[in-house]
Amino acid sequence: MIQAALIGAGRIGRIHAASVGGHPESTLKYVFDVFEKAAVEVAQAYGATVAPVETILEDPEVDLVLICSSTDTHADLIERSARAGKAIFCEKPIDLSMDRVQAVLDVVKTTGARLMLGFNRRFDPNFMALKKSLDGGEVGTPEIVTISSRDPGAPPAEYIKVSGGLFRDMTIHDFDMARWLLGEEPVMVYAAAAALTDKKIGELGDVDTAVVTLTCASGRMAVITNSRRATYGYDQRIEVHGSGGMLSAGNVLEHSVTRADADGQTAAKPMFFFLERYAAAYRNEFAALMESLKSGAMPGPDGTDGARALVLAEAALKSRQTGAPVAVS
Amino acid sequence: MIQAALIGAGRIGRIHAASVGGHPESTLKYVFDVFEKAAVEVAQAYGATVAPVETILEDPEVDLVLICSSTDTHADLIERSARAGKAIFCEKPIDLSMDRVQAVLDVVKTTGARLMLGFNRRFDPNFMALKKSLDGGEVGTPEIVTISSRDPGAPPAEYIKVSGGLFRDMTIHDFDMARWLLGEEPVMVYAAAAALTDKKIGELGDVDTAVVTLTCASGRMAVITNSRRATYGYDQRIEVHGSGGMLSAGNVLEHSVTRADADGQTAAKPMFFFLERYAAAYRNEFAALMESLKSGAMPGPDGTDGARALVLAEAALKSRQTGAPVAVS
Amino acid sequence: MIQAALIGAGRIGRIHAASVGGHPESTLKYVFDVFEKAAVEVAQAYGATVAPVETILEDPEVDLVLICSSTDTHADLIERSARAGKAIFCEKPIDLSMDRVQAVLDVVKTTGARLMLGFNRRFDPNFMALKKSLDGGEVGTPEIVTISSRDPGAPPAEYIKVSGGLFRDMTIHDFDMARWLLGEEPVMVYAAAAALTDKKIGELGDVDTAVVTLTCASGRMAVITNSRRATYGYDQRIEVHGSGGMLSAGNVLEHSVTRADADGQTAAKPMFFFLERYAAAYRNEFAALMESLKSGAMPGPDGTDGARALVLAEAALKSRQTGAPVAVS
Amino acid sequence: MIQAALIGAGRIGRIHAASVGGHPESTLKYVFDVFEKAAVEVAQAYGATVAPVETILEDPEVDLVLICSSTDTHADLIERSARAGKAIFCEKPIDLSMDRVQAVLDVVKTTGARLMLGFNRRFDPNFMALKKSLDGGEVGTPEIVTISSRDPGAPPAEYIKVSGGLFRDMTIHDFDMARWLLGEEPVMVYAAAAALTDKKIGELGDVDTAVVTLTCASGRMAVITNSRRATYGYDQRIEVHGSGGMLSAGNVLEHSVTRADADGQTAAKPMFFFLERYAAAYRNEFAALMESLKSGAMPGPDGTDGARALVLAEAALKSRQTGAPVAVS
Repeated sequence: MIQAALIGAGRIGRIHAASVGGHPESTLKYVFDVFEKAAVEVAQAYGATVAPVETILEDPEVDLVLICSSTDTHADLIERSARAGKAIFCEKPIDLSMDRVQAVLDVVKTTGARLMLGFNRRFDPNFMALKKSLDGGEVGTPEIVTISSRDPGAPPAEYIKVSGGLFRDMTIHDFDMARWLLGEEPVMVYAAAAALTDKKIGELGDVDTAVVTLTCASGRMAVITNSRRATYGYDQRIEVHGSGGMLSAGNVLEHSVTRADADGQTAAKPMFFFLERYAAAYRNEFAALMESLKSGAMPGPDGTDGARALVLAEAALKSRQTGAPVAVS
Repeated sequence: MIQAALIGAGRIGRIHAASVGGHPESTLKYVFDVFEKAAVEVAQAYGATVAPVETILEDPEVDLVLICSSTDTHADLIERSARAGKAIFCEKPIDLSMDRVQAVLDVVKTTGARLMLGFNRRFDPNFMALKKSLDGGEVGTPEIVTISSRDPGAPPAEYIKVSGGLFRDMTIHDFDMARWLLGEEPVMVYAAAAALTDKKIGELGDVDTAVVTLTCASGRMAVITNSRRATYGYDQRIEVHGSGGMLSAGNVLEHSVTRADADGQTAAKPMFFFLERYAAAYRNEFAALMESLKSGAMPGPDGTDGARALVLAEAALKSRQTGAPVAVS
Repeated sequence: MIQAALIGAGRIGRIHAASVGGHPESTLKYVFDVFEKAAVEVAQAYGATVAPVETILEDPEVDLVLICSSTDTHADLIERSARAGKAIFCEKPIDLSMDRVQAVLDVVKTTGARLMLGFNRRFDPNFMALKKSLDGGEVGTPEIVTISSRDPGAPPAEYIKVSGGLFRDMTIHDFDMARWLLGEEPVMVYAAAAALTDKKIGELGDVDTAVVTLTCASGRMAVITNSRRATYGYDQRIEVHGSGGMLSAGNVLEHSVTRADADGQTAAKPMFFFLERYAAAYRNEFAALMESLKSGAMPGPDGTDGARALVLAEAALKSRQTGAPVAVS
Repeated sequence: MIQAALIGAGRIGRIHAASVGGHPESTLKYVFDVFEKAAVEVAQAYGATVAPVETILEDPEVDLVLICSSTDTHADLIERSARAGKAIFCEKPIDLSMDRVQAVLDVVKTTGARLMLGFNRRFDPNFMALKKSLDGGEVGTPEIVTISSRDPGAPPAEYIKVSGGLFRDMTIHDFDMARWLLGEEPVMVYAAAAALTDKKIGELGDVDTAVVTLTCASGRMAVITNSRRATYGYDQRIEVHGSGGMLSAGNVLEHSVTRADADGQTAAKPMFFFLERYAAAYRNEFAALMESLKSGAMPGPDGTDGARALVLAEAALKSRQTGAPVAVS
């Protein structure tokens, strides 16, 4: 039985607590949150104890630390958990600064810690089916990967301020998906972007709408289109145009009902947002982590995947600022 | 060059006139209609002459007579055209009375006339693709044929009165499709039906909503669902559940655009009604007739197909009246 | 905390055990199965105790009995549970004999027991969305309800023998859905059916392919098409043609990926079978039962719903045997 | 009656000849082609006369010249036709050199000639429906326009050599669509591109796969993805993500039939290529030209539209060569 501790009992932390509780071979021992009330609620629901981080890391019975606290705490907590010999699951990103990320990865490497980064989309059943088909050669070599990734609505201004900006906060998932599907590292990043949905976002120096082009050495390309506001719902689609066909993963709708009337044929909206759309992905993600803990294999996506996605995000940011494509290595 | 004459210059007659005019090997020589104005309009558009039926049938240059006049004139016109040695295209039905139909078919047989019945749906590109796949064995043997056939709105009461009723007027097309797809003649007909869309239709002794079950000796079945009023548009779908899979021909929509917004994802309505939906079918139908005239093969669907569909329609009517299934032979 | 006991630890019993275990307000206390090994496995997974039925019914701490054993034990177990003052969930059917069902319902009535029948499809999120739209008047009054209900493959001959036949075993779910959606009791049943998929099924006196028509006093109709073998997967679709539009609940596919290549555009198959397709329905069903236990409201669908569905199944059987429609009251 | 002359009787010329022949108010008087056989065939089919360009331009009865000859003849023929006082329809592009295009437009302006450029996609019924919805404000202001435009297979190397390259030959249509839908002129062009489908294309200095980003002053963006080889067929899709929703025009399939079997649910391929897919667009295009000739309004898209699309194509080419975005004015 794997004993886990949860640090950060907010929205996403609760998702992972449920995964721990729902898995036959894991149990939640501790919960910590800077808001004690949140920690208590989650602890009670899963028979866990509220405890400070120190206690968690010092308890030799704790096998796994799930880091779901605010972004600015991730790097420190990963390092401390790694040094305490814990397996680590951390929500993306490791840090907004590439230097800091590199320092963390060094600690992870030195300590030999197992670290899984929360790129949950790799575990979405639909994207997994697409990847399996792609890896099975069903459409040949990928040539153009097209990722449509749009949120139903922008987060509040306070969140935007500390988010690291669109590319590091939102597009980072798409950068990971692009890498995963291209099967080759991008070498060039060009980002066209603007604040179109909300003036305030622009006033904060951020953007909310973007088209990002990634190019690989072989000539393969990926294009990501982002918006912070899709009035039609959480838009999460992927297309891979390959040398032998095309794979498309469409949106997952709220239900399968269509209403036909004088106005046309109306299908349901996409599932509301990431908690709903990626519910199965979060479960699969945790199951994969458990598998790796059992088999002894290193879990993935790992810290390096986190770093590479961040490199692309920083390149996109620089591209937007300079107006020129940015080479990455 | 095939010289054709059109009898009946209404809505459907004009469709066939356009097919004659648009085919590189046919030309329209005469038009007749009881409303002279209609005849004149069509004649002018295609460089034809308005003439009475006698003139048409006596002119040895006329190869083909297209009968698109009112139902009560069909039987007589087929007989006269057959005796005049003309090839004949006639809109369904031959007649509402089975005895009269039999008499007509005898004349057709005796004279050796070529007669094609206007079961246009057999020539719809979508249904042709379905049939080709079925005949190619792609889904094995048909077991359940499901036909959804619903009109956007009921015709006026005056039309209902002389229509011969739902089964002979509207379902007759579906009976023909069922026979065509089952690959075996039905031996039993059961019709559940009611006047649900308009009280007046019930007061006229007719129905507007029906579920008709056809059973073959082998156990294969077809089910037809009809309504005179589909607020969502002309609903024309076919499914064939076979021993090795299923074929479905969906509706043909007005366009391929979907609008996604807070209410869902709205696709276009089906094409309005038979003139729009079956535009290609009418062209293909005429082209097939021309092919048979050139090759010397007998055209199809022929008079016997018309008679068999009518047998099924009469059985359905009797089934509705008696409440019991009706055997047909 | 509701304490539940499971009788019958087979495939479907395990589904309900998981629902009990996964619900925050219920716990599984006992498990019984004639195969002790099955009982032990389930008991261990949920921290329950293996015990005979007597012990279960005598324990005053048991609030709820879940009857998932073989059909021939249902009636007796419902009666005993009712007399023991337990709330009851029972998989359909109560019994294959209408007389026995009536006797059971009398006991349920006399004892005032809460009885929920396992018509899980009412709790499928897609069908719930359809029902909500229908009840909200979005397509007016229902006129034709079309239910496509086809299994991926027939059960073994031994199961067929004791199943009560297609109508009581498989179509019974569709009869319940038809009643639920028509909003009016059918008064006439006509069933056309044959053994087309497997000769052995016919030799056992059963059928595997059916088209069943239900007619209500108002003229509303429902048509059910069944097959024991859909090579393309578990086919579970519903359409409601109403006076103001149409609602269609399509199949739920394994994933949202489409592969386009020289052969066309291939989407995934429907989810394999009832355990997969109706996973959410089973959870929702149990949650609804828990709601009713908490609120004190009688749960539904109840024993009467079970009885009425069985009446329709028996009428369908008689219709197939006599070839005539059968009136029900 | 508009009297038209066709210059260039190849594949696309024949399409326009059919439009002339099929329109009730136009007739084809002359045909010219450098391959006399082609000219004769088309002339015979439509009752026209084969004649040299001089004769055509000198005949005062000729109202309209349709220029469908090779690209290198367009500029000269437009100028001569304009000076001869003819209305002009010319297939894109006017010329591969921007200077030459400007000179032609000067002649068009000076002579006051009516010139329609063959951007047929604006007349596709699906894209027209999308545009109408967009112009009607149904999805608010456009923010991201996504154009997927991929050919079923590359043209022969000889064609590639004289084509002007991917951007001027193929993407030019997409540049026109982007301008049409953005409602604002792009000011920046970035093109990532490679020769991935065929080494020979790369050896000729051209590319076959591209992702082109267009940015407007307001921040609106368009992204075009091109491939010379889509094994799954002619891929022609448009999406407009707007401030109030999204419009998507999907591919037009060969037919509406889906085959479901053990491998999944397979729909038809997109219609083969531009002649099939855009058949209705060509008819609508000619009808719009006829309307403008009748009403006296200047037809559109006009020479300026042709020039602006070429400006974008040249910018894309330069962007690919330099690796940097290119500003356009």
